[in-house]
Amino acid sequence: MKVEEIPDPAVYRLSFYLRQLEAFRHLNRNTISSKQLGEALGYTDAQVRKDLAYFGQFGHPGIGYRVEELIARLKKILGTDKDCHALLVGVGNLGRALLTYKGFPRKGFHLVAAFDSDPGKIGRRYGELEIQAMSEIVRAVGTLRIRMAIVAVPPESAQDAVNQLVKAGIRGILNFAAVSLTVPEDVFVQSVDLALQLEQLSFRMSLGTIQNSLAAPM
Amino acid sequence: MKVEEIPDPAVYRLSFYLRQLEAFRHLNRNTISSKQLGEALGYTDAQVRKDLAYFGQFGHPGIGYRVEELIARLKKILGTDKDCHALLVGVGNLGRALLTYKGFPRKGFHLVAAFDSDPGKIGRRYGELEIQAMSEIVRAVGTLRIRMAIVAVPPESAQDAVNQLVKAGIRGILNFAAVSLTVPEDVFVQSVDLALQLEQLSFRMSLGTIQNSLAAPM
Repeated sequence: MKVEEIPDPAVYRLSFYLRQLEAFRHLNRNTISSKQLGEALGYTDAQVRKDLAYFGQFGHPGIGYRVEELIARLKKILGTDKDCHALLVGVGNLGRALLTYKGFPRKGFHLVAAFDSDPGKIGRRYGELEIQAMSEIVRAVGTLRIRMAIVAVPPESAQDAVNQLVKAGIRGILNFAAVSLTVPEDVFVQSVDLALQLEQLSFRMSLGTIQNSLAAPM
Repeated sequence: MKVEEIPDPAVYRLSFYLRQLEAFRHLNRNTISSKQLGEALGYTDAQVRKDLAYFGQFGHPGIGYRVEELIARLKKILGTDKDCHALLVGVGNLGRALLTYKGFPRKGFHLVAAFDSDPGKIGRRYGELEIQAMSEIVRAVGTLRIRMAIVAVPPESAQDAVNQLVKAGIRGILNFAAVSLTVPEDVFVQSVDLALQLEQLSFRMSLGTIQNSLAAPM
């Protein structure tokens, strides 16, 4: 199996499966079938089996999936079975907001270093971190053994920042700059599309208004 | 069809279908089958047909889907076939970053008013907007006919802000505050989970390391 063979949306489905399994665990469910897991999320059972088959064999004949076991294995696959350190590049408005975003540590993600190219910001403290110069990235990545970075710089500076990160040994980049980035094959970029979230909301709101047209014969 | 009958992940799939169809259009494809659309995204053709069936009948016998037609209809369903105005509550670090986020206007979303409870911020300008007092929300929603709001306030103020928005007539809320919100049944909340994005990245990075274990017999 190669990374390219797994389509992006399948990656999202893995996160949804995990969240749904955690909800089942909360309800004290010990086992679950692909049909039940699928139904809770609106997938066919074939889709669930196909998705999980990318990663191994998880079901037990006559039992289905063991909830606790599947949670542990999905977390391992997602790489979230242990705490993860990341660095931040770009301490503007967005960067400062991310430094104090409570959702990261809650899921085991910890920002352990922050960098900016603005000399006026270097040496200043935000939260628990002192902002460092970009030239310190290589040393920090080596010392702290960081493999993941969040890029929150203006679009025009993003590629340059990413080049420095890749050179320093970073292998995963969460990109908030609304531009495409060029990286080597062994580096992964996850781009955040906040407009997609508004589109989703827009969908839910407009659903009410299309119900009438759906009720009409088509 | 009721909103509750459509599972959350299906809503995301609609956005993915739309993006994929736009990619096909870019390649000058006029028609597409559910199998081809599914394959590009890693779905079974049955999944594609099931998802689209929530919203109507889109295929043509012997032809499949007409790309241009399906794009137009999905956009209409998503409510993104025309420009959409939204307001912002909370002009802290995150709020200021959102006010200048280029991804919103590019997709037809425009922030047309901004509010904060801090008297020190009211009257100040960020970008094109002058920050207004929370007490002005009702008037602004009525005058500008806004139905959508972005909430970027601290978690402890989120429910209070949302109560004011709902009272003013807002029907859709994009929630950046990492707390659950209580709203009436006819109001929709879309919560942004930035940690999920890091989880996705973590997944792609860890995939390389699990390839060996997958190659082993299980």
